[in-house]
Amino acid sequence: MAKEEVVVLDFWPKCEIALEEKGVQYQFKESNPFDKSDLLLKSNPVHKKVPVLIHSNKPICESLNIVLYIDETWNGKSPLMPQDPYDRANARFWADYVDKNVLEGELGEKSIFGGHRFGFVDVFLIPFGCWFYAYETCGNFSVEKECPKPMAWVKRCMKRESVSKTLADPLKIHEYVELGLKKRYGVE
Amino acid sequence: MAKEEVVVLDFWPKCEIALEEKGVQYQFKESNPFDKSDLLLKSNPVHKKVPVLIHSNKPICESLNIVLYIDETWNGKSPLMPQDPYDRANARFWADYVDKNVLEGELGEKSIFGGHRFGFVDVFLIPFGCWFYAYETCGNFSVEKECPKPMAWVKRCMKRESVSKTLADPLKIHEYVELGLKKRYGVE
Repeated sequence: MAKEEVVVLDFWPKCEIALEEKGVQYQFKESNPFDKSDLLLKSNPVHKKVPVLIHSNKPICESLNIVLYIDETWNGKSPLMPQDPYDRANARFWADYVDKNVLEGELGEKSIFGGHRFGFVDVFLIPFGCWFYAYETCGNFSVEKECPKPMAWVKRCMKRESVSKTLADPLKIHEYVELGLKKRYGVE
Repeated sequence: MAKEEVVVLDFWPKCEIALEEKGVQYQFKESNPFDKSDLLLKSNPVHKKVPVLIHSNKPICESLNIVLYIDETWNGKSPLMPQDPYDRANARFWADYVDKNVLEGELGEKSIFGGHRFGFVDVFLIPFGCWFYAYETCGNFSVEKECPKPMAWVKRCMKRESVSKTLADPLKIHEYVELGLKKRYGVE
């Protein structure tokens, strides 16, 4: 591995959006959560899970931690975290919440969708956006009709190159839900 | 509440150690996890749990988040976080690990006990130190004999005023285990 090389082991994009915002070149290694690579096990021996960012051979684990690391290391462009300590605490709180909880209806009315500029929490929230097609198709309902605010926000975010470039293809997600998850958990 | 007032709702000290390190005056409100106050429910409506720091009427939740907020807000004295982004990522990773996992034997040999100066991870780790007496008494074994490295580290930390002042009395913890937890979970 080259000295300054940046490698991302991940399944769904999140760190990649942050790296794109910073304009950092990186290598993406798709990691199957059901078949863990030696590199993953070596890089994250404590939790044995993605995402892992490997920067100059040094691994950084846990998505919130990684995105903070990216923001602090490449701090010259597209700051993701706000400056004010209280705003920073709120950004970390909601990013952590989003990272650990599936997008629920109640989230739709929360102020996190009202931000003016793309930032820290958006990095964690937008990967759920690409699930909307699968939700709509499998659940037979309109996300836009049920949750207009999040949908409008997804559409705004999708206009950013960092997002559209890295976000998983909604059709692929649908396929993954239909052929992967449903089969795995015996859902018809 | 006065404009600049700092209030901590907590059960075990952690945020308090950080506030003591910074020399910040604060009011401690002991929170019973089995009988949640209206102030707690109002301050942390998402997770409904301690610790919560209330600074100038604004609540900050989640212990890692709170200690980072304290370090960023009162940044002139006793910096808890290192400067280097990779060291910062490691500090956040281990603080989070310690915060979410009970002290285990394997931790004894980890390098987190080898730090030269009191810092971010220590704030999260030292509250477990006051449980050692209860472990020894209830478990009938010597922590010092089994885990000499953590015990030496606990003794070093206990010399700091911020720690000795805020750490729960080991005898009280023992009483809590004997009369509280054992009774609650039906352990003889």
